[in-house]
Amino acid sequence: MECRQKMHRIPRDHPRYESLRIRQRMVDGSARGLAVREGLLAHGRGEAFDYLLGERTVPEARAASRAAAALLLLAKRPVLSVNGNVASLVPREMVRLARAVPGAAIEVNLFHRTEGRARRIAAELENAARRPGRKGRASRSTIRIFGDRPDARLPNLSSQRAKCHREGMFSADVVLVPLEDGDRAGALKRAGKKVIAIDLNPLSRTARLADVTVVDNIVRALPEIVRQVRLLRRASRARLEKIAGGFDNTANLGRTLGRIVSGLRKLSGKRRP
Amino acid sequence: MECRQKMHRIPRDHPRYESLRIRQRMVDGSARGLAVREGLLAHGRGEAFDYLLGERTVPEARAASRAAAALLLLAKRPVLSVNGNVASLVPREMVRLARAVPGAAIEVNLFHRTEGRARRIAAELENAARRPGRKGRASRSTIRIFGDRPDARLPNLSSQRAKCHREGMFSADVVLVPLEDGDRAGALKRAGKKVIAIDLNPLSRTARLADVTVVDNIVRALPEIVRQVRLLRRASRARLEKIAGGFDNTANLGRTLGRIVSGLRKLSGKRRP
Repeated sequence: MECRQKMHRIPRDHPRYESLRIRQRMVDGSARGLAVREGLLAHGRGEAFDYLLGERTVPEARAASRAAAALLLLAKRPVLSVNGNVASLVPREMVRLARAVPGAAIEVNLFHRTEGRARRIAAELENAARRPGRKGRASRSTIRIFGDRPDARLPNLSSQRAKCHREGMFSADVVLVPLEDGDRAGALKRAGKKVIAIDLNPLSRTARLADVTVVDNIVRALPEIVRQVRLLRRASRARLEKIAGGFDNTANLGRTLGRIVSGLRKLSGKRRP
Repeated sequence: MECRQKMHRIPRDHPRYESLRIRQRMVDGSARGLAVREGLLAHGRGEAFDYLLGERTVPEARAASRAAAALLLLAKRPVLSVNGNVASLVPREMVRLARAVPGAAIEVNLFHRTEGRARRIAAELENAARRPGRKGRASRSTIRIFGDRPDARLPNLSSQRAKCHREGMFSADVVLVPLEDGDRAGALKRAGKKVIAIDLNPLSRTARLADVTVVDNIVRALPEIVRQVRLLRRASRARLEKIAGGFDNTANLGRTLGRIVSGLRKLSGKRRP
């Protein structure tokens, strides 16, 4: 069996170094039991869209990140959802965001739920929270992480997927769901929550259902949201409401799609062998 | 660890039943040590392009399958390359194709090569070859499968990836490489072989380097190539040469890309929530 598949070194001068390094983090996260195999398939789908977007943060993603930051700062009970892919790719950035948004909690939220995996992911986040930050400072504040003790259910979802925490997602008013499936994004919307999605497919159900969709690779999107939160942290409520209210998700997705279409045209012209 | 991840039942009435069933075969193949985790990522990338193509065999794919069939029937030493994803998804169809093309051999050909995995894949194919066909007939002929005893190297490739069999790929004149990476497709071309690729990304290096590229999901492409081989099996050499020679891969890829672009436009119009 390939469970203990060995890690492959990627040469730094490889033209696709960054993309391959991210891929390696996913493979590693899967080998460590954080992500499931279906998560690898989902990451691959995202990679294809990232490639079509030019593997960069497009202006529409920046605008969406700003609206996301405003929504998070306006929230009474903001919750950041973490699944196996998120934990494999950006555990530290998730902790940073939880620290930057007042009152934010993290909740482990799995499509293929087992309590063992929820525990491993929670431990990964706790570990990320303990490690000193970039400037060598130890963590300043503890963050709330809801992991493997779900005590509530989201309505309109089948058994395992409905599980959540009463003090977490169940009572949240704003939820950030990076890499979420459409069913749960829909259930969160129907439960009256504001939904912020990070999704590389601008046509996915999640992307279209969310109030704010950041169409970008999570490894770029999350640091950008953290940056915007820090920029807006002292902004007035009125200003935040203007930013969030002025954001049109459908129009923003349409513009993103336009970029993919014109990018495809350019790629087809340039890249003949 | 998630090595023994349980299989999920997919309800037959699920709108994405077919795509989910294929996905499940990949997950299963990975759990059985046929495909590596990188293979799951690659499958995910393919899924995204399949989705953009409408998950169907477009006319350009049919034309490419016909040219592929002609090339295979014209070959002196045709070799069909099989990797972990191919073995997970279409082992029986691969055996069928090897039986339909006179003189064809199968060769296990891995990007992340270990002899253990090569052995498992060869065993999977041998098993597929032993099982009775659709009409309950037992296998009529044995097929040659080159697996875990590589005794030659393709020039211009790094260590593990260069390994091949002298009587197989090394001396082949036409090679079918489904789901192949660009480096090896390039090395095969430089070694003077005709390359037939099956690749869902019409912009990939493999797609652009190959002589004939079938842009289609392998679960649909392979049966279509088998069908075309059977239709053309009694055709004259002159007719086969006309079909193969009249095929323009670059133009065909351009038309496929055009379909993706217009498909994206349609999807963006129709699928508002």
